[in-house]
Amino acid sequence: MTDDEMYRQGIVELLGVLAYGELSASQRLAEDAAMAPTLASRVELGRMARAEFAHLEALIAHLEGLGEDAYAVMEMFAPMVEKFQNRTRPRDWLEGLVKAYVGDGLAADFYREISAFLDEKTGALIQEVCAGTGHSDFVIEEVRRAVQADPRVAGRLALWGRRLMGEALSQAQRVVAERDALTGVLMGGGESSIDLAEVGRLFTRITEAHSGRMAALGLDA
Amino acid sequence: MTDDEMYRQGIVELLGVLAYGELSASQRLAEDAAMAPTLASRVELGRMARAEFAHLEALIAHLEGLGEDAYAVMEMFAPMVEKFQNRTRPRDWLEGLVKAYVGDGLAADFYREISAFLDEKTGALIQEVCAGTGHSDFVIEEVRRAVQADPRVAGRLALWGRRLMGEALSQAQRVVAERDALTGVLMGGGESSIDLAEVGRLFTRITEAHSGRMAALGLDA
Repeated sequence: MTDDEMYRQGIVELLGVLAYGELSASQRLAEDAAMAPTLASRVELGRMARAEFAHLEALIAHLEGLGEDAYAVMEMFAPMVEKFQNRTRPRDWLEGLVKAYVGDGLAADFYREISAFLDEKTGALIQEVCAGTGHSDFVIEEVRRAVQADPRVAGRLALWGRRLMGEALSQAQRVVAERDALTGVLMGGGESSIDLAEVGRLFTRITEAHSGRMAALGLDA
Repeated sequence: MTDDEMYRQGIVELLGVLAYGELSASQRLAEDAAMAPTLASRVELGRMARAEFAHLEALIAHLEGLGEDAYAVMEMFAPMVEKFQNRTRPRDWLEGLVKAYVGDGLAADFYREISAFLDEKTGALIQEVCAGTGHSDFVIEEVRRAVQADPRVAGRLALWGRRLMGEALSQAQRVVAERDALTGVLMGGGESSIDLAEVGRLFTRITEAHSGRMAALGLDA
């Protein structure tokens, strides 16, 4: 494989894992909506699911524009993403909300970071279509209210947030270990290259943003 | 209550039952998507769910435009709609597809019929936002292929279609029996009035359209 082919394959895999992640997130959110305590919050979760689905459509369209079979590419990442989902199945409404918020935020951070290392067109697409779902105020309010009503909830949800972060990192590591082309893109196959110190800083930025989100929810990171 | 108040209340209830129906349909479709045999068909079902959700948003916006608490109105119809959903829970992917197609078609027929009896603005909204989800070709293809591969499937799915229709009619009857204002709108509280002979013809048109859809799937009605 030439460097160009390797880069192209890396981009395809990156779009594929993001697309499968959005599909999975969208459908899990729709399932979690069944646990909503009120109709209004059930609709809000539906809105988050719909936003994830819109991201999915943009990623499928981009993959098809590259002449790829979007579904075949996505399929490669189904086992890893589903494993993450199964290991982080919310047991109640609040865990579902925290997962939606933390997952959405992590994904948006990751999109932003990664788009800097891609060619301009792919980077712009990813920044444009894969921002957060824009429903974080609703989650923050619901979680803060629940913690206020029963402070013991805070400890349990803080633990849950750490577990989500740990599982996300361990699945991300597996993707990097198994997918050379994708790793190549993340590590410098793109326009600008990334060194190990930069990986460390990226990791720091992502965990800091995660701590910020947990604090916004009124929880210890 | 004056006639005008009665009509307004009837419209509000009509929009409420439609809205709750769309929410419920959207989330059941998202759940059924987990049974999809391929990733492409899973995404297709997600598209149907997203279209139902867009209808829901339009109905909520209209209710709020009328100064109503959309969620409180929807809540009134939750038990009836969920009862229908629980009595018609698909056991497999094909039953889910037939339910999506038949339910979507019935809803679209009903919207079309009912909009003729409403004031112009409400009627136009309902016609505009509540058409079918436009994904019927996909369902027709999948069901026909399954029947071709195993003709015994046809008998089971034909029975299923009849059961869906029966449950839908019996729930619709309950709504009419329990909601005077809504019934008033359906029976002539609106711009033009409807007599019993017209109800009979409406019923005939809806069952004929249902038979046509079953035939399109390659199934006996």
